[in-house]
Amino acid sequence: MGILTFTSDYGLSDHYVAAVKGAVYSQLPEARIVDVTHLVSPFDTKEAAYHIRQVFRYFPKGSVHLIGVNADHSDKAPHRLVAFEGHYFVGADNGVFSLILDREPDAVYDINLPYDNDILTFPVLHLLVKVACHLLRGGTPEVIGRKVEGIKRSEPVRPITDADSIRGHIIHVDAFGNLITDITQSLFREIGRGRAYTIRLRLEKHHIKELSTHYHDAEEGRTVALFNTGGLLEVAINGGAPGSGGGVASLLGLTKGDLVLVVFHD
Amino acid sequence: MGILTFTSDYGLSDHYVAAVKGAVYSQLPEARIVDVTHLVSPFDTKEAAYHIRQVFRYFPKGSVHLIGVNADHSDKAPHRLVAFEGHYFVGADNGVFSLILDREPDAVYDINLPYDNDILTFPVLHLLVKVACHLLRGGTPEVIGRKVEGIKRSEPVRPITDADSIRGHIIHVDAFGNLITDITQSLFREIGRGRAYTIRLRLEKHHIKELSTHYHDAEEGRTVALFNTGGLLEVAINGGAPGSGGGVASLLGLTKGDLVLVVFHD
Amino acid sequence: MGILTFTSDYGLSDHYVAAVKGAVYSQLPEARIVDVTHLVSPFDTKEAAYHIRQVFRYFPKGSVHLIGVNADHSDKAPHRLVAFEGHYFVGADNGVFSLILDREPDAVYDINLPYDNDILTFPVLHLLVKVACHLLRGGTPEVIGRKVEGIKRSEPVRPITDADSIRGHIIHVDAFGNLITDITQSLFREIGRGRAYTIRLRLEKHHIKELSTHYHDAEEGRTVALFNTGGLLEVAINGGAPGSGGGVASLLGLTKGDLVLVVFHD
Repeated sequence: MGILTFTSDYGLSDHYVAAVKGAVYSQLPEARIVDVTHLVSPFDTKEAAYHIRQVFRYFPKGSVHLIGVNADHSDKAPHRLVAFEGHYFVGADNGVFSLILDREPDAVYDINLPYDNDILTFPVLHLLVKVACHLLRGGTPEVIGRKVEGIKRSEPVRPITDADSIRGHIIHVDAFGNLITDITQSLFREIGRGRAYTIRLRLEKHHIKELSTHYHDAEEGRTVALFNTGGLLEVAINGGAPGSGGGVASLLGLTKGDLVLVVFHD
Repeated sequence: MGILTFTSDYGLSDHYVAAVKGAVYSQLPEARIVDVTHLVSPFDTKEAAYHIRQVFRYFPKGSVHLIGVNADHSDKAPHRLVAFEGHYFVGADNGVFSLILDREPDAVYDINLPYDNDILTFPVLHLLVKVACHLLRGGTPEVIGRKVEGIKRSEPVRPITDADSIRGHIIHVDAFGNLITDITQSLFREIGRGRAYTIRLRLEKHHIKELSTHYHDAEEGRTVALFNTGGLLEVAINGGAPGSGGGVASLLGLTKGDLVLVVFHD
Repeated sequence: MGILTFTSDYGLSDHYVAAVKGAVYSQLPEARIVDVTHLVSPFDTKEAAYHIRQVFRYFPKGSVHLIGVNADHSDKAPHRLVAFEGHYFVGADNGVFSLILDREPDAVYDINLPYDNDILTFPVLHLLVKVACHLLRGGTPEVIGRKVEGIKRSEPVRPITDADSIRGHIIHVDAFGNLITDITQSLFREIGRGRAYTIRLRLEKHHIKELSTHYHDAEEGRTVALFNTGGLLEVAINGGAPGSGGGVASLLGLTKGDLVLVVFHD
């Protein structure tokens, strides 16, 4: 049986996550549940998608990924079940699915089941848990809803490239203060064609001229750039910013959305 | 086998929660444990009770709810096991049980087992885990202690009503900044008798004249009132406070204990 | 099968912990995983060791303790597997093992397996998970690497004693603001030989002349000293600092590293 992963913006100080787990275990005693994170910034679909996109392939095929961020149903965001590479994603189709997947989904279904009760404010608890448990039990999607074509597109900002440069963005600052960018290793190779490069943060102020393979390739307290396990260009400080334990984000005053420029030299 | 739920004020940065889980698995390898929350405000029995009261019914019958807030035994707060609607609650009877249950318990037992060792500062770990595992295994409460009558009463502040109004209170502010009140849907119906109403926050300043069924019934950034899945009147902002992601609590400067007034109009 | 415990400084807002759990379940579907804490201060090997040292014996023999703090491999910190009292500890040997164990390990192995891929920045995910799963399955350490002698020594600051006093240190401040010291009960007994004593915090300012067995031996809001379940001298405030819920640390302005003096009187 697959794993149920659960991502939300419910926080950790309330009982909401536990309510969902209780409902899962009540329906499927042998379920295994893994929290991705419940500290997604409130209502931040993109942040939820980032985490799920980065993590889902570590779970076995047959896993169900429950998305508890902006999960309210509306005409613009119907409850859907999306199949992709042997994984299921369950939530409201507010664009989150398109941000998770890197190509077209294998199948999409409108969820067409009744709620458990007449309370419509917590669809994860009163509707989507039921869908997730059905799928984990090996049930077919067809029982749950009607197959539809396509998902709502939500276009993320993407790197802008020309023959000699990539203008990317910081898409996440992790708990270490590491900067994760939207510059993929494949894009870097495609545009770079093996040439030398300069990675510039804050436009002109900070330069990195060499990619590393370990965080500790730089001296402790020095900046290091590498492609992380998700294939994304990441800028970090080996061992954290000196004296603070913090990271490159606080040291350089950088935040989500800021530009990262890669210039290739002949 | 039921689930073991665990609620505490131990926080998430220490090993205390893990110690308890290790002790559970050592005694009962097949246990399933769900954290309700470990971020209860330190020593806040009422907050612990609020979460457990709201969540316990989502778990299957036979579940044991371990209460790790003010769990020290004393003459005024003996260790007890309370049976209610097929669920067990285990902790120190400092009033927490009466705040969790909405009617008399089915049975109450004084816990009468020895500690695992002579360390008396961590009874959850060295005594109550043993009780919980015994119950999860299907053991009878009689083995654990002596049946007693009644539990310690802790009277929460309750709404004050007259023929045309309910004067309730904010009993919790959740991680979204949503305001949860002690005004139940049944009380609202009983006093309201289908009449129009005005919900007033901060006494006169903020009015809501319509209950919603979804958070997004209001426009994004606007206040919405609804009865939540726990049957309690809740005031929220659809999508959080504009620009902050925060909620109605920070926007209106409201906090736990503040009044919420419902006035019914003929 | 033993439990996999997992300790890291990954925080709770990222997907890193979930990635590791997904990889574990993919290799070992029946694994049971317990988080010790993921809120270790970034790169703080000593803090990670403190938590693991305090908690590991609550888990059944055969458990594997995965250490995700400073887990990068280097010549000075090779990936190792350490066997001790029927438990396994897996991480980079940066001194953390010597801080966890209170005597020589039973066996030490250099981990000698290939990574899952050519990404070297996340060895917990791409290498150490494989080691942990092998051990949990009951596999022998010999398959994983070469037996070596000894581990890297990291000498913690220890109490300084003379015939009539112990000069210890605060080694941890927990989420309650309780002060945990490096003064063990056995050292206290050895030096104290049953004599009266004064425990001094902040050198001369605050005195405690009696050890307690419960937090509530002191009146609410008053300071209490006791030997905790880990056998360490701990100073707390019964019920937290008045009005704040905080603890003795904030009340007295004490922090990790500060001195605690015990003077014995004839």
